[in-house]
Amino acid sequence: MINVGIVGFGTVGTGTARILVNNRGLLRERTGVDINLRRIADLDTRRDRGIKLPKGTLTKDAGSLINDPEIDIIVELVGGTTFAKDLMLRAIAAGKHVVTANKALLATHGNEIFSAARKAGVEVGFEASVAGGIPIIKVVREGLVANRIRAIYGIINGTTNYILTKMTDEGAEFSEVLKEAQRLGYAEADPTYDIEGIDSAHKLAILASLAYGARYSVKDVYAEGISWISPMDIDFARELGYKLKLLAIAKEVGGKIELRVHPTMVPEEYLISKVDGVYNAIYVEGDAVGSTLYYGRGAGDMPTGSAVVSDIAEIARGISDKTAGRAAGRQSLSGKKNLMKMDDVMSMYYFRFSALDKPGVLSKISGILGKHHISIVSVIQKGRHASKAVPLVVLTHRAREKDVTRAVREINRLPVVVGKTVFIRVEGKEED
Amino acid sequence: MINVGIVGFGTVGTGTARILVNNRGLLRERTGVDINLRRIADLDTRRDRGIKLPKGTLTKDAGSLINDPEIDIIVELVGGTTFAKDLMLRAIAAGKHVVTANKALLATHGNEIFSAARKAGVEVGFEASVAGGIPIIKVVREGLVANRIRAIYGIINGTTNYILTKMTDEGAEFSEVLKEAQRLGYAEADPTYDIEGIDSAHKLAILASLAYGARYSVKDVYAEGISWISPMDIDFARELGYKLKLLAIAKEVGGKIELRVHPTMVPEEYLISKVDGVYNAIYVEGDAVGSTLYYGRGAGDMPTGSAVVSDIAEIARGISDKTAGRAAGRQSLSGKKNLMKMDDVMSMYYFRFSALDKPGVLSKISGILGKHHISIVSVIQKGRHASKAVPLVVLTHRAREKDVTRAVREINRLPVVVGKTVFIRVEGKEED
Repeated sequence: MINVGIVGFGTVGTGTARILVNNRGLLRERTGVDINLRRIADLDTRRDRGIKLPKGTLTKDAGSLINDPEIDIIVELVGGTTFAKDLMLRAIAAGKHVVTANKALLATHGNEIFSAARKAGVEVGFEASVAGGIPIIKVVREGLVANRIRAIYGIINGTTNYILTKMTDEGAEFSEVLKEAQRLGYAEADPTYDIEGIDSAHKLAILASLAYGARYSVKDVYAEGISWISPMDIDFARELGYKLKLLAIAKEVGGKIELRVHPTMVPEEYLISKVDGVYNAIYVEGDAVGSTLYYGRGAGDMPTGSAVVSDIAEIARGISDKTAGRAAGRQSLSGKKNLMKMDDVMSMYYFRFSALDKPGVLSKISGILGKHHISIVSVIQKGRHASKAVPLVVLTHRAREKDVTRAVREINRLPVVVGKTVFIRVEGKEED
Repeated sequence: MINVGIVGFGTVGTGTARILVNNRGLLRERTGVDINLRRIADLDTRRDRGIKLPKGTLTKDAGSLINDPEIDIIVELVGGTTFAKDLMLRAIAAGKHVVTANKALLATHGNEIFSAARKAGVEVGFEASVAGGIPIIKVVREGLVANRIRAIYGIINGTTNYILTKMTDEGAEFSEVLKEAQRLGYAEADPTYDIEGIDSAHKLAILASLAYGARYSVKDVYAEGISWISPMDIDFARELGYKLKLLAIAKEVGGKIELRVHPTMVPEEYLISKVDGVYNAIYVEGDAVGSTLYYGRGAGDMPTGSAVVSDIAEIARGISDKTAGRAAGRQSLSGKKNLMKMDDVMSMYYFRFSALDKPGVLSKISGILGKHHISIVSVIQKGRHASKAVPLVVLTHRAREKDVTRAVREINRLPVVVGKTVFIRVEGKEED
């Protein structure tokens, strides 16, 4: 019998406990190991989570789980990077295998956690840290092991995908939809972490580490959020045949690794464009396998619990096979980062200029774009106002980020340009 | 160093060899094991496959690979169920681990192969047997191990999906598109295996075995092909908001397992409806994880090679960890089949009756349907011909297969009904 201790009896803790209790027999049939939920630590030991647990399972003292010699696996589900980090390191030092859903912890202190685990010869399971129930860690690390990963494009934050979907379907403003998302529990009271792309950046750092064999941290990821997105840009995107999504992108280009999270226009016929609401999807392109996509719920008690329990099951099997801990060495990911500077990233771009409707405006703007090696694919110019600014939309061929920021700075200084220029990166096959 | 021998240097054999040669360094970094492609056996040792191999790698004698004490893993890529079976059993008896892409072999003689492997303490890798490059075996067996699998819906045959996509996009007839598919190499000279749903049935038997813990064979799967599908039905499906796909369905309903392959109308807004051409996709619903979907290329040298090499890598790692062979016991899948009879399957249905345009026809037909407990959701009646038959399309609520076949038999006997009634099962949420 393998004994499990869970620290944190919130949403994911509850889902994990429910699965371990309800599907215990099934797990035994499938893994050949009996997995017993021995203790759960949480400050709130009184609230009824609707799970039947033997008396004495609950405790307020997380330390007692670490000190329990019978417990083989500690599941950290408290979140944050202070108490959680301390808890993980103590559990590892005590020779416990650990499982976590904590992307912030891994994307910030991954090096420390994994090297401690390597030294102690214990496993760190983190399937639940990216994309909830989708087994994307296993897919990238094992299923696609034969592939050089050319690119990963992920919708890996449900909150922002919910907001963008609502904005797209209803033409609503960002702030309006955010409020609704908060009311429904899809967004936190302080939504910064999600809407500014930080959560996606954490998860991307974890995926990229597996894909490219180096330990990337959240600091290596360029992140841009969605709070400045206007329904007008979503409409223009639609007119041009694109959907607007917050994508987390990891890409190998000429031996350099691009890591970036930003609103992205994706051709509407692409499968990932059809991933709506709180769902997640990750597109992975390998040199052998080509295009693949993985779709499912990226959050929630039971989906994330499914991922946590898959780690528990694998470690339990490893303990029974006396191989648990061997994988720790493979998590060193000691390769070079070879990061591409954001300035050097090449992309297609969507621009929305706010210009006065005067003769020669388009010629001035396109002149500056041309000077910075940015060539135009198509233009949408609408509305007629003698004195007010009208939107001028430009879609470009592949251009360098550095050139784009320079051109925009110059264009914003034109007297006929009133208001800040909006630019959004565009993915898809270039048509030329 | 782990030595690999490949038997069968055709499409998948070439892809596998190419990956092992080109990505050898990458595989060593990721797995910690050096995997060496030692021998390849094929009757054609002369054709240039564009891969640089050391002299002496190629041989016509598959037996020499089995007798080579240095070879740890034999990869069977010859196909068929006679020579391949014999080869697999001999390799297993010689204590070699085996990897195969042969769904027909596993869905027909799985019991024999897996029990031999269990006795010999060797692994059988078969990721490549279902859905090519999509790591669906690993996902179902490990990634979703925490879940009771409620349902699997798969587009797992590229040939038929290509044909249906072309028929849908171009309104073309089946026979026309089949010819084109044969010309392009997407369909075999004798296409029966694909177009009659047999290939999908093989793959479904393998997936269902993992999902439901019993050893299902192809004989347990009800299979219906697409050769009788008319563009007219695809058009009516579109009018009703559905796409026509050949789905392989495994489903648990009240403790019984349904296994069936047949043309199916799927709501057009479902993600799986958007899977076109030769691509595969598998929708898996688990009790914890909810809806998930896996998408990618279901065939081809490199995608299938990617799956073969993922098995080789996992076994190689197991050999180096001295655990290879332990998984064999878990492949016994000795549970009860608990098969649902096709007669008892409940589904929504699409009917197309060919009836004379006379008063009272709809009343007669709907009367017979009602008598057999089949209730109507919607009706499309078009065209006016005093003497010729016109199509009468009926969409129903959930009904029992047995009742449907009885009702159709009775309706086909009506004097006003000329020509055979077409019926197609319909998936999706029932609206009532």
